[in-house]
Parts: sequence; C-alpha cells; structure tokens
Amino acid sequence: MSAVEFNPVDHPHRRYNPLTGQWILVSPHRAKRPWSGQDEKPSTEQLPSYDEQCFLCPTNERISGDKNPDYQGTYVFSNDFAALMVDSPEAPQSTNPLFKTQGVRGLSRVICFSPDHSKTLPELPVEKIRGVIDTWNDQIEELGKDYIWVQAFENKGETMGCSQPHPHGQIWANSFLPNEIERKEHNLKAYYQENGRNLLVDYVEAELKDGSRIVVETEHWVALVPYWAAWPFETMLLPKTHIRRMSELTDAQRDDLAVAIKKLTSRYDNLFQCSFPYSMGWHYAPFFEQGTDIEHWQLHALFYPPLLRSASVRKFMVGYEMLAESQRDLTAEQAAQRLRDLSDIHYKEQQ
Amino acid sequence: MSAVEFNPVDHPHRRYNPLTGQWILVSPHRAKRPWSGQDEKPSTEQLPSYDEQCFLCPTNERISGDKNPDYQGTYVFSNDFAALMVDSPEAPQSTNPLFKTQGVRGLSRVICFSPDHSKTLPELPVEKIRGVIDTWNDQIEELGKDYIWVQAFENKGETMGCSQPHPHGQIWANSFLPNEIERKEHNLKAYYQENGRNLLVDYVEAELKDGSRIVVETEHWVALVPYWAAWPFETMLLPKTHIRRMSELTDAQRDDLAVAIKKLTSRYDNLFQCSFPYSMGWHYAPFFEQGTDIEHWQLHALFYPPLLRSASVRKFMVGYEMLAESQRDLTAEQAAQRLRDLSDIHYKEQQ
Ligand SMILES: O=P(O)(O)O[C@H]1O[C@H](CO)[C@@H](O)[C@H](O)[C@H]1O
Ligand SMILES: O=P(O)(O)O[C@H]1O[C@H](CO)[C@@H](O)[C@H](O)[C@H]1O
Repeated sequence: MSAVEFNPVDHPHRRYNPLTGQWILVSPHRAKRPWSGQDEKPSTEQLPSYDEQCFLCPTNERISGDKNPDYQGTYVFSNDFAALMVDSPEAPQSTNPLFKTQGVRGLSRVICFSPDHSKTLPELPVEKIRGVIDTWNDQIEELGKDYIWVQAFENKGETMGCSQPHPHGQIWANSFLPNEIERKEHNLKAYYQENGRNLLVDYVEAELKDGSRIVVETEHWVALVPYWAAWPFETMLLPKTHIRRMSELTDAQRDDLAVAIKKLTSRYDNLFQCSFPYSMGWHYAPFFEQGTDIEHWQLHALFYPPLLRSASVRKFMVGYEMLAESQRDLTAEQAAQRLRDLSDIHYKEQQ
Repeated sequence: MSAVEFNPVDHPHRRYNPLTGQWILVSPHRAKRPWSGQDEKPSTEQLPSYDEQCFLCPTNERISGDKNPDYQGTYVFSNDFAALMVDSPEAPQSTNPLFKTQGVRGLSRVICFSPDHSKTLPELPVEKIRGVIDTWNDQIEELGKDYIWVQAFENKGETMGCSQPHPHGQIWANSFLPNEIERKEHNLKAYYQENGRNLLVDYVEAELKDGSRIVVETEHWVALVPYWAAWPFETMLLPKTHIRRMSELTDAQRDDLAVAIKKLTSRYDNLFQCSFPYSMGWHYAPFFEQGTDIEHWQLHALFYPPLLRSASVRKFMVGYEMLAESQRDLTAEQAAQRLRDLSDIHYKEQQ
C-alpha cells in the first residue's frame, strides 16, 4: 500500500451504482492513451427539411405501403418490424432450470418527433419538444393499461444503430418486467424499506447540495452525470420533486422539462460540434396491479452517449467490459465539468 | 391468448441465463426487417506479415520507447496505458450508500499471439495456438498469486474497439471480483448448493445429448451457442470433464483445445468470408483464499461476436437493450445451424 493519499482524478477506483447493484471501474489516468482504432462517421452534414426517400417524412409511403399523413407535430405509427407480437402463445413450462423459456406479448411503435427531417431534439423549438413530451406521456398512459412495462426511448445517430436520420424515437410495450426494470424495482424498494425514503429523491438532494456533477439545472429539473456513470458523458435527468410517473407532472413541470431537454442536448451537440449520438429513455413506476406500492419509484430519463474524445472517437464497451465490468476513462466530475463549461445554446443557433 | 401452438422460431419469447440471472428477449420473426443503417468496414484485406509501423511486430519500437524482441511464438509485455495501477491507495470509506467508492489495484498486459502481423487465431497452425494457450495459462497462474481475478481476453477487429490489427489479446489482473464474475460465483454456487452438482457440467451433458446448439465437438471440447445467447453468433467453449481452472488441463486437453479454437474461429471467418470480429475471454474459478470451495466452477471461454447479417451489418445493443433487456433476432438453434453448415477449414486455407 502506498503512502500517497487517494485522489479520484489520479487513482483507479470503483464506484457503486445503487440502482443496478453493479460496480463501475474508473481509470481516470487512462484518458491519455493514443488512439489508432475505428473512427465513427461524425454527423455534421446539414440534411434537407424534407427527403422524398425518407420513410418518416410527412406524405411519404412506408415499406408497409401505408402513407404518412401531412403531420405538423409528432406522428406515431406501429413499427412494421416489431420485436414483439400482441398475440403470441404461452411457452410451455420447462422443468429444467437450465432451459427456462417464457412467452411474451408486446408491441412496438415509432414516434416521429417532427415533420422536419433535419431537426433533432436540441434543434426543435421548446414548444415542439413539449409536444414530444406529451406524446411520450399519452403513449405510456395508453399502453400502460394493457402492459406492465412501456419503454420509451430514442436511438440517435448511426453509431447507435439508428437506421434513420429523421428525428424519431420508439415505444416498446412489454407483458413482462425487463431485466433493468426488475433490478431497479428490487434496489429502489430495498432502499425504501430500509430508510423509509425514496433513493432518487435523496440522491438528487445530495447532488444539488454538492454541485460537482450537475450539468443543467432549471426551475423543476436537474440533469447530472451520475456518480456511477459508465458511459463517458452519461447523464440522468430528474424532477426536483417526487414524481412516480410522467402523468403526475404539472403543466409547468412539462414546459420546464422541454427547456431542460433542449439545454442538455444542446450542450451535448456543442461538446464536439456534431449531432451527438446517444440512446436515451424513460424509467418510472411500472404498471403493476392496482394497489401495489410504488412510492419507491421516481421518474427519470437516462442518456447513454458513446463518444469519448471527439466527434469520431467513441468508447467501446467490449472485452473487459463484456466479460468483467464496465470501465470508464474520466471521472463523472470531469465529464460534468466539460459539459458545464459549454454554452447551453445550440451551436447552430448561436450566430 | 391465441390458439396457435408456441413455436420458438415464430414466436417472441424470453430465455433465462442461469449464469447471470438475466433474461434475453428472442424475436426470431424480426430477422426479416430491411437495413439502411451503419455499415461496418469488413476486414477482408490481406495484411503484410511484417508492418514497420506496427507497435506489436518483432523488433519494432513501442510508444514507451521499449523495443520488442525478435520473438518467434507469443510475446507478453506491460500495457503502456493500463486501466489499473499496481500500487494505488485505498479509497476512504463513504458513509453514504449512494456514494460508494472502492480503491482497486491491478495491472494490464498485452499478449502478442504471433510474430506474423497478418495471422489471426484461425489462421495460425494448431501448434502456435497451443502456444497461446500455454501463455494464457502461465499468465493466469503467475498473476493469480497476487490477484483474486485475472481476466484474459481478446478484442478482435475495429468493430470491437481494437486499435491494432496485429493478432493480440490482453490480461487484466484485479484486486477485486468484477461484476460478471461476482454474479457467476453467486449463481454457480447456488446451483451447486441446491443440486449437489456443477451447473456447467450438467449443462454440457444436456447439450451434448440434445445436439441442436452444438457448433464444434472435438475429443475433449465442445463449442455451442448457449440456449440464452444474447449476441447473434455468441458461443461458449467448454471442456467435457470438470476443470476448475486452466492449470488443471492435461497436455492432451490443451492440444485438443487448440484444435477446437481453430475450428470454431474458422467457422466464424467462413460465415461471412471475413475476419470475424468478436470479444472473447476466459472464466474459471477465481483465486480465492486457500481452502475456499471452488467445486461449483467450470472453466469456459466466451465468444461475443457482433455481426448479424453480413460482414458489414452488425447487431446493435442500444436503446431497448441498454434501458431494458438484451434482444436477439434469431434463435440460438438457428445460429448454431448456420455455423454448423459451414466448413471448419478456414476459407483462406481451402484451396
Ligand atoms: O486496450 P485497448 O485495446 O486499447 O482498448 C479496448 O479494450 C479495452 C478493454 O476491453 C476497452 O476498455 C476499450 O474501450 C477498448 O477500446
Ligand atoms: O428498431 P431499429 O431502430 O431499426 O433498431 C435499433 O434499435 C433496436 C432497439 O433498441 C435494437 O434492437 C436494434 O439492434 C437497433 O439496430
């Protein structure tokens, strides 16, 4: 053991994610290594507002043969290649614990965020982002009547497997609790039972006091790099009050959420002056049977962006990460500082 | 509920991974969707046997200024940009369960598999692969004296974040049990305590009887697509007898392992006639304190290859996968069948 004092910026360490029960290996001294590996195609080109080849643009025809209406705000339709089916049969029970199968039901929809082919979330006016929030909420409430879990998410950028530049997200409804939600349910509940308090409400309170991981703070919302972030510029977006599901948000909180999303995603785009790729999505209290206690849940969005050093150099979660444990090359505080140092006005809107 | 009978090739379902305790969503009907997203650069070009710009080729100088010897078999050196340090101070104990930190020690080494810049594992002669196996074993045994966990792995291909085409792997030694190993320890032990038997030994026995997920079978080894595979062509490579650590393998088992690796990785390259990218690595009984029971462990290698449809179209584990649960587009049996239908002689060695 060395006599040197521990310093999180110089010394490798692990941090614990109390939501998933997993550790993350932090190697802050490693950001200095040279890079000669794969370059991503950075997304900096200006797209047209309407593309006649695009399946998602208003009035165009999709692969299914259906024609999109001349929509003005958001537009929702059934995914033509859904991973789930509304009506699939139960799988037979397996007696062998090594070969367990479960039948599942579900559906999958696409949400176009805007008729404008060229405008991602940070480039939309606040009122249009508010429209996206209302659509998320309507979809979640509608599908929550039939399904225990409704995952709203966005894959942005080719790096994130997004096959479509037109701004859009997805909704997958599930007859089961997916792994990540199951784990969160377990950990949030355990904390609540032990402390009589909500884990994420306590967490936000502590983060607001500390300040070092905060990226955006608005009247009702806060975006921060979690203490246990795995992806280089990962953030969480949370309300400042206890909100179990999106439907509980007031009008003022929704308007303000649009502001917070615009500011956060503008900082992202400003970081490497490109359309910043990420996967993002919402977690909140699942649609358990009426009467189930959900006080331990708190609504929050998660942003998982892969870029590490530039518009074209990403972090790979491979080898060691897949076989052993997630690893990151800068501390959560360093990442937050970099995002905080930028303007919250999108670089294209700055002149 | 429909009257149709459940068929794993047509109906979405989940399968349970008893090693990690996680489910995987299987959507076999989804393989039909069109693709207009990111293309990977397929690795089909012929590299020279020696590249004077390469840090790993014999006699060349590395960034550290050190010069590689004129090695003939494998060559091991310290990673110049290790994620871990041999001597880092303990982190102070946190009293808040939401801000838990742990100091860690470790080191990281690079293993060049061959002096030949152009030859990946499947292209090496069996005797040379045997040399790699011996090097893995020597490294694990040496480092296991000081560290509880030694992760041997290979990231192959640019798609897997590999910044170096020269055939090589890595060894990361850890003063802690990483997440994945901790989970396996937990689940293997629970099965052993409940059934008085080794989970993976039972599993291989059942798979050999069934046959539908077997890809390669040699005298002492079997490579199969696990029932719960997440990546499209994921495989596990296991011995047919109970082996807790690599050091317990007989000479005959090691020779035969080289044969099995050559056959498996040749099938991989043959699938899309390219150098098939993957991350692979070894799991086995951790180096617990002397006397700790490790009967529940079984040595095995894991191969996680991302390609899905062709040399340039991969599966993205993004959005839904990151936020909810891993999802795959073909069944384990379909993947095994495709790999089984190929020759086990590498396409470059076929003429
Ligand atoms: O050490 P390399 O090959 O430069 O780096 C690669 O493998 C590491 C271990 O899996 C990962 O942490 C890095 O993200 C990846 O780029
Ligand atoms: O549905 P898309 O956008 O075609 O597909 C993308 O998102 C899905 C949900 O995260 C993933 O399963 C796919 O691997 C990815 O390519």
